[in-house]
Amino acid sequence: MKTTIDDIARLAQVGRGTVSRVLNNHPAVSDETRARVLAVIEQLNYSPNFSARHMRTESSNLVGFVTDEVTTTPYAVDMIRGAQEALWQQGKMMLVVSAGYDSETTRSSMEMLLQRRVEGLVYAAMFHRMVELPAQLMRVPVVLANCFAGDYSLPSVVPDEIAGGYNATRALLERGHRRIAFINLGDPWDGRLPPLAAAQGRLEGYRQALAESGMAFDPSLVRYTDQSPKDNSNITRAMLQLSDPPTAFFCGNDRTAMGCYSGLAAMGLRIPHDVAVVGFDNLTVMAETMYPALTTVQLPHYAMGKWAADYLMTLQDQPHPPIQYKIDCPLVLRESI
Amino acid sequence: MKTTIDDIARLAQVGRGTVSRVLNNHPAVSDETRARVLAVIEQLNYSPNFSARHMRTESSNLVGFVTDEVTTTPYAVDMIRGAQEALWQQGKMMLVVSAGYDSETTRSSMEMLLQRRVEGLVYAAMFHRMVELPAQLMRVPVVLANCFAGDYSLPSVVPDEIAGGYNATRALLERGHRRIAFINLGDPWDGRLPPLAAAQGRLEGYRQALAESGMAFDPSLVRYTDQSPKDNSNITRAMLQLSDPPTAFFCGNDRTAMGCYSGLAAMGLRIPHDVAVVGFDNLTVMAETMYPALTTVQLPHYAMGKWAADYLMTLQDQPHPPIQYKIDCPLVLRESI
Repeated sequence: MKTTIDDIARLAQVGRGTVSRVLNNHPAVSDETRARVLAVIEQLNYSPNFSARHMRTESSNLVGFVTDEVTTTPYAVDMIRGAQEALWQQGKMMLVVSAGYDSETTRSSMEMLLQRRVEGLVYAAMFHRMVELPAQLMRVPVVLANCFAGDYSLPSVVPDEIAGGYNATRALLERGHRRIAFINLGDPWDGRLPPLAAAQGRLEGYRQALAESGMAFDPSLVRYTDQSPKDNSNITRAMLQLSDPPTAFFCGNDRTAMGCYSGLAAMGLRIPHDVAVVGFDNLTVMAETMYPALTTVQLPHYAMGKWAADYLMTLQDQPHPPIQYKIDCPLVLRESI
Repeated sequence: MKTTIDDIARLAQVGRGTVSRVLNNHPAVSDETRARVLAVIEQLNYSPNFSARHMRTESSNLVGFVTDEVTTTPYAVDMIRGAQEALWQQGKMMLVVSAGYDSETTRSSMEMLLQRRVEGLVYAAMFHRMVELPAQLMRVPVVLANCFAGDYSLPSVVPDEIAGGYNATRALLERGHRRIAFINLGDPWDGRLPPLAAAQGRLEGYRQALAESGMAFDPSLVRYTDQSPKDNSNITRAMLQLSDPPTAFFCGNDRTAMGCYSGLAAMGLRIPHDVAVVGFDNLTVMAETMYPALTTVQLPHYAMGKWAADYLMTLQDQPHPPIQYKIDCPLVLRESI
């Protein structure tokens, strides 16, 4: 004999609607009642037929999450977590696909997600960049995280790179530094892709903070690294040979800051006593382990994932004009400034 | 008029079965045919009703992936990628839930996955440990990744920690080192949890490699770190004060190796000229950035995720006795030895 919702309601001494709310993870059920209903469900080994319910309600309660890559920026996984926790609040679950940079895989991934009748899609890029997405995506609402469409035709959430550059520079100015070097991120693709949104925005923030303090922008204090440890270290040492050398380094990411530390150590300089250093990204596993621990700027991966999922849910009720939402990149103060 | 599979077959000039195989992502379709069918599907804006299909076939083609945490060990996300790519090959998709360490959230996450009629579950832990899982899990096949059940009642895949410890020590012995310090991972929970599987296995591997070379085990060369940067650095310096100091350090993880680098730099010692260093984990973002680049041991996250998903699929055809499969942790040679 197949167990029904009525059997559960009777044994748990609740109404049919309460069982349904528990099954749908609806918040308006007391913890005690929920526990009682779940105990009966487990006792009866009951598993509701979700497929049947989807047929009736036309709602799959599934959302697709597609990423280009998840391995190069380890904390980008926080985007997955942010989106998942936001959807969880609304009783939705997330189908995750990492499609890589290959457009054919991206296309077939999305096709599979649409076949599952996902209610919408979050497309997340692992570094802040422009993306072009297959047209088939447009059958359901889409929100972009850490990326944007070239024509801004889709809603997106990105880091406020300008604010991040400003926050880093401002923290150094407040500690009395007047000669602040900026080792910015060079283009590792050697011109084959557009300039990095991160590099452009952070430079703008650096300039804004200097201007606000009435200081002239000195181009000799800005250098671009090819992002190799050797280049990061060499640039640091070269800039300290300037006739009016910097007393602080703002580094384009935490890896650059590690190379900067090496360069300073090789010259016998102490951090922060002789020279201050600020990074960018807040790869905590690295920043907390550096010695001294690195003051850096947070890339808001968790917040971007959460915003994208929350916004996606609002798009189901009514369409909105596409917006680009920027999330602040706050300073994470440790011991290097 | 609703589009049907017959409409697509006619326009794409293929049989009904071919359309079905393309929709199911079956490999036995040529790229050219697949592209033609997909083009028609897009043109007609067709989306097959998967819910209806599930009702008929009793197969959801969904697998659940539950993690305790994804944030502390950044490369653990490679487990998600490994599992997803393996399932993708079989036309399955993955519902990902990070449930944290809270047993109630884990329980309700799994309940939701079972309601979706997942065909099986992978439970992945972010560090190698024993887990206790809710009984409700056992309604579908389960495979554990990077963890194991206390009574070994579930199949699991874990890193071969002994092989990892052996590989690290062996590499140093082969380069002529005879005094090899081992900074092992201390128990950050201060006895509230069982000893770390990683620490036990790696010590065993260290001892095996020494014994194989006919060398006595010297307890004064093994120390346990509380995993803080300060302790890592201090232990390094203290061991170099021994009357017969080590010429090489095997560090329990890459973060420990960073602290070891700091300790060596503070004493004016060069790596690898004066002292060799090997880490464990292969957090590439960190190991490649350290100066010199860190030789370390790979934690096989991608391979564990892939194995767990592949093995889960075999469990659907027929039940197997639970096994524990161990995956090698190979040396990743860079510049620090």
